[in-house]
Amino acid sequence: MARIRVGVNGFGTIGKRVAEAVRLQPDMELVGVVKTRPDYGAIYAARNGIKLYTLRENINKFREKGIEVAGTLEDLLGSIDVIVDATPGGVGASYKPVYEKAGVKMIFQGGEKADVAEVSFSTLCNYEQALGKRSIRVVSCNTTALLRSICTLNRVARVKSVRATIVRRAADPKEIKRGPVNAIVPNPAKLPSHHGPDVQTVLPWLDIVTSAVVVPTTLMHVHIVYARLGTSITLNDVLNAFENAPRIILVSSDLGLKSTADLVEYMRDIGRKRYDMPELAIWLESITVRGDEVMWMQAVHQESIVVPENIDAIRALTEAAKTPEESIKLTDETLGLLRGRIP
Amino acid sequence: MARIRVGVNGFGTIGKRVAEAVRLQPDMELVGVVKTRPDYGAIYAARNGIKLYTLRENINKFREKGIEVAGTLEDLLGSIDVIVDATPGGVGASYKPVYEKAGVKMIFQGGEKADVAEVSFSTLCNYEQALGKRSIRVVSCNTTALLRSICTLNRVARVKSVRATIVRRAADPKEIKRGPVNAIVPNPAKLPSHHGPDVQTVLPWLDIVTSAVVVPTTLMHVHIVYARLGTSITLNDVLNAFENAPRIILVSSDLGLKSTADLVEYMRDIGRKRYDMPELAIWLESITVRGDEVMWMQAVHQESIVVPENIDAIRALTEAAKTPEESIKLTDETLGLLRGRIP
Repeated sequence: MARIRVGVNGFGTIGKRVAEAVRLQPDMELVGVVKTRPDYGAIYAARNGIKLYTLRENINKFREKGIEVAGTLEDLLGSIDVIVDATPGGVGASYKPVYEKAGVKMIFQGGEKADVAEVSFSTLCNYEQALGKRSIRVVSCNTTALLRSICTLNRVARVKSVRATIVRRAADPKEIKRGPVNAIVPNPAKLPSHHGPDVQTVLPWLDIVTSAVVVPTTLMHVHIVYARLGTSITLNDVLNAFENAPRIILVSSDLGLKSTADLVEYMRDIGRKRYDMPELAIWLESITVRGDEVMWMQAVHQESIVVPENIDAIRALTEAAKTPEESIKLTDETLGLLRGRIP
Repeated sequence: MARIRVGVNGFGTIGKRVAEAVRLQPDMELVGVVKTRPDYGAIYAARNGIKLYTLRENINKFREKGIEVAGTLEDLLGSIDVIVDATPGGVGASYKPVYEKAGVKMIFQGGEKADVAEVSFSTLCNYEQALGKRSIRVVSCNTTALLRSICTLNRVARVKSVRATIVRRAADPKEIKRGPVNAIVPNPAKLPSHHGPDVQTVLPWLDIVTSAVVVPTTLMHVHIVYARLGTSITLNDVLNAFENAPRIILVSSDLGLKSTADLVEYMRDIGRKRYDMPELAIWLESITVRGDEVMWMQAVHQESIVVPENIDAIRALTEAAKTPEESIKLTDETLGLLRGRIP
């Protein structure tokens, strides 16, 4: 079978990771990426054999800096099956008519409004719903994280309601213009935060309320989740569910993984590129069961957690894998994703 | 009536604030404070007319630095009715035999174990229970904050259960040895955090689970509280309850009070000494009612929130005020505490 020809629009935090993940897939080909600025990211891409495309008006800026450009966005769209839009939040929608005109299938990120695509997507929740669609929105990092644990738990016992607090990192590691520097910021001060409704774009039946605060750190988000189930459940059931789920790792404070900084340090130790952790980390000790309630704490690497779901979304759109299990197997093997208790 | 003679052991974050608050009470006299180190805090106290006492072995250290000492801890205990222990967490218990030998009534802080005193105390919850007791433990800043809002809400409708997340500041403003600098730290990774059981030392009937994370900020804690009531309730009922309660202020993100940093800035603007905010700040927009559920976000100034309760505790021990209302009126007027919507 011919490989799926993929283009990525945007080579920032998400775009560069998705592009590199696509290159690792045996059933995909990265035709090229679109960049608007001729910066160190463009040089990095070019040096690593990734073909660069740009907007027509920017071609000369690239040539002035000696960076080779393979063509325009439209040229790229003419030679691919699927475009992964990884432009800044809200910008993706403005490109949609261009993608549609070219007749390519489209993946948008969670920064876009839900109506940008036919389906909001999380592999562990609704892969089948996305099969053969023309457009998919891969939900944001926090929503992806919530959906991974909720849908995993929901396989063991129906999840009735969720009340979750999201402690957000203030900025990504490379950002220098955002704060706070010394404050805790309700984000927003109104409940629910957008994450609850965003979870409902995938699980419309779930009673979920989320709240969020921003804090002065760059590494990861942390969620504290209080879930109520339709029935009582044992701690062992929950542990087994999380332990056997793909893309979830159970980490132990007792082994010294006490904070998001420790989690990142361990990713550095095991040689993960950019210290990425696409797995959702759940603190083993935090998992608590009281009758029909389950509570836990989880850490979310905002830069990389949506990468596996983007890869799966490509297979769902093109029906290259008919089941989530089939896609997960390929994605997780090629990306070297862990599961179970770590280390 | 003779004024209550009060001593304060410790002149750190809590001790200095309680000592100064005692001086503002018409029915109390600050006899002196105990300090172990002849540092800038001792010089500040002496210059402000606060008599310094110390441990016998430290007297010479003070004299070497030219700081006058009025006597030993035992001398102080011999001339007071009530000692407020504001020594570091866990240290207070070791002084208890000394206080008992002197026959003074005792107030301990929330850093001590609950069994250090006859009753764990929060003015809005259980003032009457503490009347005439020999020893009181004023619960910690986070517990005081939770109890203020829970007991206020409980007057309108029985609070059945609480699930709360505490986003803790990493260090007090003057501290330089604590972190984290760039991480979110589950504190602990096990649920519940100690705050839930601590609330239960005052409200043993309440089903409460708390979880906590530490984040890199120094200004205030933030709580996200999900409460379930025995009945349905209207948003107006909740707003009225919080708006009319003492020691609670309703703050509005819409007016720019968007973070703990904004709250502190406003305290600086209105000329609060040390930018203290002994009031519990509840974000107006965050208050959400769904059937029998109430949720909100609140900010807690860790350095000053327990000061009013310490003053009330002195009156409860000595029965100088027979009702909480009587003590609250005096305390809040003398300390200039606000209530209702701010600004």
